[in-house]
Amino acid sequence: MPSLSARENWRLLGESAASLEETPLASLFATDPQRFSRYSIEAAGLFLDYSKNLITEEVIGQLLALASECELADQVAAMFSGQPINTTEQRAVLHTALRSQADSLMVDGTDVMPLVREQLARMGRFVDQVRSGQWRGSGGRPITDVVNIGIGGSDLGPKMVVEALADPTDSGVNTNPVKVHFVSNVDGEHLLQTLVNLDGQSTLFVVTSKTFTTLETLTNARSARRWLVDQLGSDQGLEQHFVAVSSNAAAVAEFGIAEANRFEIWDWVGGRYSLWSAVGLGIALAGGMEQFNALLAGARRMDHHFLTAPMEQNMPVILGLIGIWNRNFLDIPSLMVMPYDQRLASFSAYLQQADMESNGKSVTLDGQPLAIKTAPVVWGAAGTNGQHAYMQLLHQGNERVASDFIVAIQPREGSPFADHHPALVANCFAQAEALMVGRSRSAVESRLLADGLSQAAAGQLAPHLIMPGGRPSNTLMMERLTAETLGALIALYEQKIFVQGALWGINSFDQWGVELGKKLAAEIIDAMAGDGEPDLAADRDSSTAGLVQRYRQTLAGRSGD
Amino acid sequence: MPSLSARENWRLLGESAASLEETPLASLFATDPQRFSRYSIEAAGLFLDYSKNLITEEVIGQLLALASECELADQVAAMFSGQPINTTEQRAVLHTALRSQADSLMVDGTDVMPLVREQLARMGRFVDQVRSGQWRGSGGRPITDVVNIGIGGSDLGPKMVVEALADPTDSGVNTNPVKVHFVSNVDGEHLLQTLVNLDGQSTLFVVTSKTFTTLETLTNARSARRWLVDQLGSDQGLEQHFVAVSSNAAAVAEFGIAEANRFEIWDWVGGRYSLWSAVGLGIALAGGMEQFNALLAGARRMDHHFLTAPMEQNMPVILGLIGIWNRNFLDIPSLMVMPYDQRLASFSAYLQQADMESNGKSVTLDGQPLAIKTAPVVWGAAGTNGQHAYMQLLHQGNERVASDFIVAIQPREGSPFADHHPALVANCFAQAEALMVGRSRSAVESRLLADGLSQAAAGQLAPHLIMPGGRPSNTLMMERLTAETLGALIALYEQKIFVQGALWGINSFDQWGVELGKKLAAEIIDAMAGDGEPDLAADRDSSTAGLVQRYRQTLAGRSGD
Repeated sequence: MPSLSARENWRLLGESAASLEETPLASLFATDPQRFSRYSIEAAGLFLDYSKNLITEEVIGQLLALASECELADQVAAMFSGQPINTTEQRAVLHTALRSQADSLMVDGTDVMPLVREQLARMGRFVDQVRSGQWRGSGGRPITDVVNIGIGGSDLGPKMVVEALADPTDSGVNTNPVKVHFVSNVDGEHLLQTLVNLDGQSTLFVVTSKTFTTLETLTNARSARRWLVDQLGSDQGLEQHFVAVSSNAAAVAEFGIAEANRFEIWDWVGGRYSLWSAVGLGIALAGGMEQFNALLAGARRMDHHFLTAPMEQNMPVILGLIGIWNRNFLDIPSLMVMPYDQRLASFSAYLQQADMESNGKSVTLDGQPLAIKTAPVVWGAAGTNGQHAYMQLLHQGNERVASDFIVAIQPREGSPFADHHPALVANCFAQAEALMVGRSRSAVESRLLADGLSQAAAGQLAPHLIMPGGRPSNTLMMERLTAETLGALIALYEQKIFVQGALWGINSFDQWGVELGKKLAAEIIDAMAGDGEPDLAADRDSSTAGLVQRYRQTLAGRSGD
Repeated sequence: MPSLSARENWRLLGESAASLEETPLASLFATDPQRFSRYSIEAAGLFLDYSKNLITEEVIGQLLALASECELADQVAAMFSGQPINTTEQRAVLHTALRSQADSLMVDGTDVMPLVREQLARMGRFVDQVRSGQWRGSGGRPITDVVNIGIGGSDLGPKMVVEALADPTDSGVNTNPVKVHFVSNVDGEHLLQTLVNLDGQSTLFVVTSKTFTTLETLTNARSARRWLVDQLGSDQGLEQHFVAVSSNAAAVAEFGIAEANRFEIWDWVGGRYSLWSAVGLGIALAGGMEQFNALLAGARRMDHHFLTAPMEQNMPVILGLIGIWNRNFLDIPSLMVMPYDQRLASFSAYLQQADMESNGKSVTLDGQPLAIKTAPVVWGAAGTNGQHAYMQLLHQGNERVASDFIVAIQPREGSPFADHHPALVANCFAQAEALMVGRSRSAVESRLLADGLSQAAAGQLAPHLIMPGGRPSNTLMMERLTAETLGALIALYEQKIFVQGALWGINSFDQWGVELGKKLAAEIIDAMAGDGEPDLAADRDSSTAGLVQRYRQTLAGRSGD
């Protein structure tokens, strides 16, 4: 296979980028009144407007041709059919099976669909027990609070979804209201902040770790157990307060969680793609199984669209290609994702892992170094908050940033402050417009003169008010943020990330880069604990050794030497 | 004045960067056993290790010479002495006066120090009244909950500090415990999420807006008033539940807040630098005035260091110069800031505004376009969480990211889970080390062979495990995170940002780039509300017009055309 950058369409895209260098984005609208309808797609309850990117029909054609050269459709088919596309770990990648309604899907001689159905049924029974108040704590009280202990994929996705779908006014008329909390950080303050408001008698812990060896999760789980014994005044009945989501049955049993209370997770589900599995137990406990199924249904709709829509009308494909255009041809190093929705305040934190851990790679599947850039830095906050924080740089800084805006046309059903909503939506549209059109020197000067400034004063101030414009953005819109549209939104980004990884030719499903830090941390913690000279290898850099020494000296009361 | 990039030391720095291109960062430690002590500074309770940057004595010398060429010391003196260095708004920049203990400081013929002292005294009286339970709601109940309504600088800094200094186990033995909440987003869900758990009888709102015209803040304040009237069953006694921090006395009065309950803010305090003023009222209400004074004292210690330490031992100067080196000479587009401290989970959100709104500019003070890059994108999450999210990209992606790590050697005093702390610290040191040293092909292969892989299998997998290393980072360490060390930390970054703005020759204290979006939003919201064709200018781009039309069609029940 030729390397990506050696492909014909890669070269053509480079030429297109060069020829568009001096073209103001806004001018593309002036010359084509159909631009908005030409560059928008509706699917699975989502509407994507991608017209505010520096693209032309030629660019889109070249991007689609590149996707075809890279045999994208075959790569998509390979994932959905359970081929071991995670080659460095020799695993299939089948989070799509978790939301599929196919009868069967064979992986290595095993049909995974019955496993998925059975696990969902088990989740459903458990969730109903807890939410109906049948499941009791050891002292006979129903569960009011669930603490999900997990980190990374066992935390970011489920936490984001729970926040997004919460109804703050829910008083649990028909079911026992269950509040779900998330503890991830090994910092003891995180566990403390959560436990301090809880009553052990009515608290259930869900310990989520595929391997059941994750440092943070096991540390927090052990401390939670200590706290619970203290709260209950006894270590009897702990099994009513702990369930696990893990594939390591032995470690779960050793921790003292009954096998009946262990939910399964399979090696064909990557952590950052796992919220659709029992890792999403917290989601189902917070909102019920019906809502969880609606989340799956939304993702399934997007998967169906991804599998069946023609490439040029395929939302994940187009979003992925636009990302490659911005990253590789316009050389934009970061993607700012800004949901105009307080419920999605954690969306960019979720997406950071989904995107950067998947595509933050620099070798191809066959081990060749990749000279071209891969995943951008993904970051952002909820709008309108971000407008009052970092948007200044996007409007007037000299490093271009690409943006994705996300907004629901209607507020949450039943919102008592629904009258705030039009201002939220208007600000979303306005930021995208302002980034695109900018503000010219002449527009600035006439405004300043109208404000009463002298010609000289206006001339002096004007350069500070000019905005270059030409900042690209996508706008994703839905009628309401519901379990179904959220499921579609998450699946959209998952598949967009897949598209980009497939074109770059990298493995989006491993994460070897996080291994070394864990190993070094284990060595360092031993050295920190010793009494004598830090027990680090003699050739350790003086910075690491010096920091450890300083730590030890401070603990020994000899701060600052 | 010559442009920055025309200066002699700029050219020399470019040559240094080119000559260091092939130098592995780790090799600099091998050749200099003193590197850690050479490149570390202690000041105001903070310890900075900057040795893990691609710097040499020559580079540091050139950076310091550049600072001198740019007359940094004079620029610092101009700020502290109240010169109108915010030239586009003709204002002094005197957040440093808010934490100063100078007798007097004349600005435009007015001594500001008595104003600062008087305001602090007023804050102190009010805070003591609320926390002692003397201040009562209209129904006679003491205040248990404070809701700060503000956005941007009236939210991010105070919220971050309140979270950082909270003691979750505080039961308010000697004072009335007051919980402080923050509402910023115009999205009604944000206000709702907060109010749903509160009792109006014991709730106090602090409405913070310099101009008292901020869309988000006024929208939320009006809805809060409506809610309160509903809660109290009357509009009598509202004045016991609302105070304001604003310079617009007329608008505050019109809202119905008594002048006696208005705290002042001056035009020589920028929003993103205002937590030291009455904008920090929420901080003082949450933790008491003694704690607030300790915060000021910590910042004052850092200011004193900044003003008096020689440049080469000056922490904000060095941190700022390292940032310029990474940004302009190593071409690193973003700065990842990762406090290994759950209490500082909002630190990077705070710092985004402080840095990106200040230095996200591209014209010089005298209005010349600046070809070189200015503020980086600032982003990050708390460690260890970020390790399980985005660190993969930093270790193995092919876009370099610079990192600042922040960690306290000891956990919060009285923490019941203090035994987690060494793991937190070890992971911080380990990430910085792993980023710097990386992992070579030979190290990877010997590990894989030791794991039992065949030579062929090891050879095939190895490229995926290699980590290039050479990722620069700073480590900031303190014995404990307290009000005083936090004050020093915030002031450190404020002054670092100043140093960078001063060298780049930009105005770090205006934010003209946020104006246009507000104006466009006002136009769009009008068009959204109309009944006929969207009332947007005929030459509006089809994207903005199309989005507005879609919004209106959806509300009218004609979704999807």
